[in-house]
Amino acid sequence: MLCAKASLARAPVLPVAVRGLSQSSFHSSAVQGKDKVVILGSGWGGYEVLKGIDKSRYDVTMVSPNTYFNFTPLLASCAVGSLEYRCALEPVRRYTPQVKSYQAWCDAIDFKSKALTCMPATPALPGEQSTAPRADATTTAYPGTGTPFSIPYDKLVISVGAYSQTFGIPGVKEHGYFLKDIKDARSIRTRILECFEQANEPLLSDEARRDILHFCIVGGGPTGIEFGAELHDLLNADIKKHYPHLAPLARISLYDVAPKILSIVMRRYAVKAFKREGIDIFTSHHVEGVEAGRIFVKEQGEVPFGLLVWSTGLSPNPLIETITEAVKHPKTGSVITDDHCQLLMKPSKEGDAPVPNPDVWAVGDAAMIQGIMLPATAQGIVCTKVANQKGKYVAKNLNRMLESQDVSRPFKWKNMGTLAYVGEDHALYDRTKAAKGPKPKKAGRLAWLLWRSAYVSMALSTRNKILIPTFW
Amino acid sequence: MLCAKASLARAPVLPVAVRGLSQSSFHSSAVQGKDKVVILGSGWGGYEVLKGIDKSRYDVTMVSPNTYFNFTPLLASCAVGSLEYRCALEPVRRYTPQVKSYQAWCDAIDFKSKALTCMPATPALPGEQSTAPRADATTTAYPGTGTPFSIPYDKLVISVGAYSQTFGIPGVKEHGYFLKDIKDARSIRTRILECFEQANEPLLSDEARRDILHFCIVGGGPTGIEFGAELHDLLNADIKKHYPHLAPLARISLYDVAPKILSIVMRRYAVKAFKREGIDIFTSHHVEGVEAGRIFVKEQGEVPFGLLVWSTGLSPNPLIETITEAVKHPKTGSVITDDHCQLLMKPSKEGDAPVPNPDVWAVGDAAMIQGIMLPATAQGIVCTKVANQKGKYVAKNLNRMLESQDVSRPFKWKNMGTLAYVGEDHALYDRTKAAKGPKPKKAGRLAWLLWRSAYVSMALSTRNKILIPTFW
Repeated sequence: MLCAKASLARAPVLPVAVRGLSQSSFHSSAVQGKDKVVILGSGWGGYEVLKGIDKSRYDVTMVSPNTYFNFTPLLASCAVGSLEYRCALEPVRRYTPQVKSYQAWCDAIDFKSKALTCMPATPALPGEQSTAPRADATTTAYPGTGTPFSIPYDKLVISVGAYSQTFGIPGVKEHGYFLKDIKDARSIRTRILECFEQANEPLLSDEARRDILHFCIVGGGPTGIEFGAELHDLLNADIKKHYPHLAPLARISLYDVAPKILSIVMRRYAVKAFKREGIDIFTSHHVEGVEAGRIFVKEQGEVPFGLLVWSTGLSPNPLIETITEAVKHPKTGSVITDDHCQLLMKPSKEGDAPVPNPDVWAVGDAAMIQGIMLPATAQGIVCTKVANQKGKYVAKNLNRMLESQDVSRPFKWKNMGTLAYVGEDHALYDRTKAAKGPKPKKAGRLAWLLWRSAYVSMALSTRNKILIPTFW
Repeated sequence: MLCAKASLARAPVLPVAVRGLSQSSFHSSAVQGKDKVVILGSGWGGYEVLKGIDKSRYDVTMVSPNTYFNFTPLLASCAVGSLEYRCALEPVRRYTPQVKSYQAWCDAIDFKSKALTCMPATPALPGEQSTAPRADATTTAYPGTGTPFSIPYDKLVISVGAYSQTFGIPGVKEHGYFLKDIKDARSIRTRILECFEQANEPLLSDEARRDILHFCIVGGGPTGIEFGAELHDLLNADIKKHYPHLAPLARISLYDVAPKILSIVMRRYAVKAFKREGIDIFTSHHVEGVEAGRIFVKEQGEVPFGLLVWSTGLSPNPLIETITEAVKHPKTGSVITDDHCQLLMKPSKEGDAPVPNPDVWAVGDAAMIQGIMLPATAQGIVCTKVANQKGKYVAKNLNRMLESQDVSRPFKWKNMGTLAYVGEDHALYDRTKAAKGPKPKKAGRLAWLLWRSAYVSMALSTRNKILIPTFW
């Protein structure tokens, strides 16, 4: 105990196979004679597989840089403080000890030897060098400073998600806030209050105050719309009360390159609602650069801001970029699966058809089903969670395999409608894209009720099911 | 709006008097013809004055680098996650618009011209230089990068508190965690979970795991004891459940230079309880240095740790150090007041008696009453909150002055007993020091009930009064 250095020393060989340790007391929970299923990622897809899979008959391991599952539709609420952060989190370790779990990045997949190279996502130990943060590192995820280790798998589920898309616009990563993780929500909440305290400095001109209290949202998707609506509610409630002299100087602008936002029904409603509520929507506008405190809009020139929230879609995950053996979508760069969510591998001979990998599934924003363009991630859109549905499907198939039951039924996704919150107890309910079901519902209070109940009935633990309503 | 730089420019003259702006719409809430009371600090003392003072008849201004009041006794609970962070916070702006509030540091007091020099504690605006963080800067407090401004006062309450004491031991500030602010609680909570994820890295030796899972507490005061107890509960509840293979490797050590901890009653109980619960208490031990991952203890040599929580008392606040006109305590460096909590100024002539300043009060950890040595701050000790009682007293006197009522009654503090949580539904109740009241109560469940109810009945807003019990 008296020599930290020595005792903190690690095996030099990299990567070292973990199975070698599975006899040790530490890995006593490792199960012999069972198929080892490794799930990569604890997001909508991976967490659903983790929940659904028969953990008593598979030896399940979760590898994720996050120690929790983000209930993404609630992040907008967390960001404005209308919800406790913890309500939006599910600890991955809920399923301990049945499930082994590593807070780590998966950096490479060896499909031949069926092994993963992983890097701990925990902070550096004394004597270790810390490395530069990874693009998508979160509150709990560290860049990877420990000793790489190797995990073998019998079956693999790839659900590593995607990163935020910035289209290489300079300054976005440095000065913009994303809304993908609970840490983002917390920073945004802190920043909103900072803006008002800054604007409260006694020697500023009112013009300077207006600049600081200009809240810009880039991206007219559900996340952008929903955050704008929640922010608007905040400005009209707590802020008006706590900063009465400043609230009138605050305004919200939403930018999108597209000529219209969301789907037809939602756009018609949202634009009207937002206009009425004093949120300016600038469609067909192009942000060309971001600096501290200002964005450069092609159609407007330099626009000062206090807070910039960026939600313009997704870019490929680095792990996916390392995969050369699988078929990929030329535009999105995501891997392609067959209609059973199984990874399509490149054929050995030119011109042959791609071959589904019998042991590897891919779900969520990192994967697409061949020939079908499903809506990608949709923070705020509860009911079209494709990742979620795919996760359920894969878990069910894995379980059916245990009984050698038929798993030939392909994945079919149900568009159960699209919801986004647009503030002040209104919400939108959009089923224009719905395969079946009633005609588009009139948006408004009914939709809002649907929106709330949809969340509460989502896959959250009882703890959270109990907590959430108490905050509304 | 299209030129951020210009619009963000500020008045060049420093500091600029705020009263000059009081006609502007921004300062419309400034009240003419009323005495201007400025409260420095939003801690136990200042927040109590803010609460108690007649805000309709005084023109009250709060200057604090924090935008909230920390309900310090709850921080230990927040640190181990048994309580939501928000429960331990009271927004200073609850009293807006009656009260003007600036998130700022007070850097100097001019007792002659009755004016304060303040520096915004908000983040730098575009184009401004950020400066090095202040020793005690918190989640919401920035070092001060804006334009200094001046605030005049008619009456002044100094309640700026004190900083954490490290006795100049090298490495404590860099590698130790304090437990003074909600930000500290959050970092500690994050760190505890980090330790277990680090220890979970597959290639570590069990010895290395034990080192990472060694939780060191330095300081046997109520904060240290209480955090140790809360941490112990955490290890035996959630941690045992989520990290069953690691929980047995974790241990807690508490170090103190003194030969005994707390008061007699509490020590006897705590030592027994802690021993039984596997918390090692090392009294008469001296920490001589701290490095990443290890402390150097005179009596033990090098001791590895994963988390170090430091709570060995207080050091003077920088603002107090700038005050040369007032009488100070030679040892603690805090200012001295008369028994009406009014600041004692140095006499103009050598040998004369110090003169109480009729317009300046000082309460909390920054001040002491002449000739009386009251217990200083006591996180975790609810009922001996001297700062709290002094704040009540000053507010009452200020209100009585409005009616030109008698304010000759000196401050008398009531020791209503000392409570500290020692885990697993036990608590301590110590009235040995109590001026009057029953004999020392048997510690145990009764004390625990007292401990809980004491908190809930403390000066928290209704929102919190409602929230807190739901979390227990």
